Amino acid sequence: MKLVTFVIPSDPQVMPLLGLLIDNDCTVVDLQAGRQAIAGTSSPFLIDMLAFLDAGEAARETVYEIRDFVINQRPPATTYPLNEVVLLSPVPRPRSIRDCMVFKKHLIQATRTVVKWRSPALAKLDAWMETIRGKPLISLPKVWYEFPIYYKGNPFSVVGTDAQVHWPAYTEKLDYELEIGIFIGKTGCNITPEEAHKYIAGYTIYNDFSARDIQLREMAGRLGPAKGKDFDTGNAIGPYLVTPDEIPNPYNLTMSASINGEEWSRGNSSDMHFSFEEIIAYISQDETLYPGEFIGSGTVGNGCGLELDRWLKRGDLVELNVESLGVLQNVIV
Amino acid sequence: MKLVTFVIPSDPQVMPLLGLLIDNDCTVVDLQAGRQAIAGTSSPFLIDMLAFLDAGEAARETVYEIRDFVINQRPPATTYPLNEVVLLSPVPRPRSIRDCMVFKKHLIQATRTVVKWRSPALAKLDAWMETIRGKPLISLPKVWYEFPIYYKGNPFSVVGTDAQVHWPAYTEKLDYELEIGIFIGKTGCNITPEEAHKYIAGYTIYNDFSARDIQLREMAGRLGPAKGKDFDTGNAIGPYLVTPDEIPNPYNLTMSASINGEEWSRGNSSDMHFSFEEIIAYISQDETLYPGEFIGSGTVGNGCGLELDRWLKRGDLVELNVESLGVLQNVIV
Repeated sequence: MKLVTFVIPSDPQVMPLLGLLIDNDCTVVDLQAGRQAIAGTSSPFLIDMLAFLDAGEAARETVYEIRDFVINQRPPATTYPLNEVVLLSPVPRPRSIRDCMVFKKHLIQATRTVVKWRSPALAKLDAWMETIRGKPLISLPKVWYEFPIYYKGNPFSVVGTDAQVHWPAYTEKLDYELEIGIFIGKTGCNITPEEAHKYIAGYTIYNDFSARDIQLREMAGRLGPAKGKDFDTGNAIGPYLVTPDEIPNPYNLTMSASINGEEWSRGNSSDMHFSFEEIIAYISQDETLYPGEFIGSGTVGNGCGLELDRWLKRGDLVELNVESLGVLQNVIV
Repeated sequence: MKLVTFVIPSDPQVMPLLGLLIDNDCTVVDLQAGRQAIAGTSSPFLIDMLAFLDAGEAARETVYEIRDFVINQRPPATTYPLNEVVLLSPVPRPRSIRDCMVFKKHLIQATRTVVKWRSPALAKLDAWMETIRGKPLISLPKVWYEFPIYYKGNPFSVVGTDAQVHWPAYTEKLDYELEIGIFIGKTGCNITPEEAHKYIAGYTIYNDFSARDIQLREMAGRLGPAKGKDFDTGNAIGPYLVTPDEIPNPYNLTMSASINGEEWSRGNSSDMHFSFEEIIAYISQDETLYPGEFIGSGTVGNGCGLELDRWLKRGDLVELNVESLGVLQNVIV
């Protein structure tokens, strides 16, 4: 299933609605209206995606019923063409955001750009060593291999696809990050890697917009990124929540990013050093995870401007395309 | 005012209630019951502290009215002796937690302990240089002087005073942190330092329990602390939310910590390198702050076991005492 949160522009008084894509992702089913068509009740079903995730397996079963009923009966006023609604982020305000850094190439290449700013010759040597020896001079911190380290983002900054992203006044170097992410669908603590797949409600695309100049300065303080990641509209998540049954192998998804139609980034989720199952196991040690919490993979190799030393400007259209997960696109304003 | 969130153990079905301390902090007014006594209405007033903070100035005025009415009239069933209720954290689930690091001495001394583990002689020399020259060998990252750097905590891990704190199985070195903090009381973005005081709903004490061994390993990965700070019950906040009218100068509060009755830590909020007003201005650059978000100062100098190389053990009672803010106490289990 591809689940969405959407609003109907022609009816601005309606609150965001919970929807499901059908007809080859061209039509949105209004799940509340669909349920009323089946049951003849006007009682609220699930007021939003968080309520859906909280409700667990039973709610998923109901959604399947609604889907089948709507597809077969086509009751009036239960569907909208996708291009006539506005999608919000599937969970407009996640209960939390954690973002990992499990792609080695990203970290090596991002570091190399920073080295290059200081010494182009050294960066060149490093790239050459990687080509010749298969190993760059830049070495990753030992901990990177041991744990899926992560920082926490600001859930109030989340926007969906097609939303405008506001360039923060305090940065000269705004960047995109091509990532995938999961939403937690079940409460749990001390989850084993073997059981962890049961806690994944679904997959989506994540663009963790970053103010690189301030981020690099802040990270020297050793508390991780703060204003480098924290600004309104800086976390684009979407377009859909794609349930695991549609993603037989989340670790072989082609990921790409285009700026104004030109491809800048291409990578694959197969390069993740830790799986989401391992990440869930790590985070949930003595710490309860709740439905609606979001976990990002970190940027895929080649997946941001910092690695390429290419930079966004105001007005740019940033499109992230991930196999089976759709396209997350945002314009910088 | 000292505002609290409390439950009545004798009536476990009652949801947490919003309260106010009177009678020299010996009595809790149930604000909902107090309002009903005035207005004769059973309509809900403010269901919790977040609703109170969201409601802004008008709600504060109503609380003053209730307080005066209850103090004068003493209507039945509107008050409880403080020692007959259980206090939760004043905001049981803050909308976010950001924690700064604005005390220089903490950072110097914490670093010195880590140096000492590797080279006791070097740590001794460093302390000696500080005494003789007034300047240690350990130098802080430049950014520390420039910005109030911070990391984000897990709001689901919050507990109040008297709550048990669970020792995470994955750490050998659990530590306390003696901090003060504020709750945001008003929505705002791009707030100036001059205006920032209007956004402070009140002050409280914060014990940011930390798993030092894992924290130090993780921070080498440059994304800041994660499992070193993130575990259930690891964020003790309380006992009260003390409104600014009771704290004429938040930058001259004596702070101390005792373990099993023995004082380990003593410091003063006057050593903050950035004020909360400056911190609010920094964070709110292009980023909206909302009522119910929490911001911690970071650990006061001498304010944790890492600085002293003294360590908690299971069963320890940790008491943080801050002038005008009360005592936040927790037992490690």
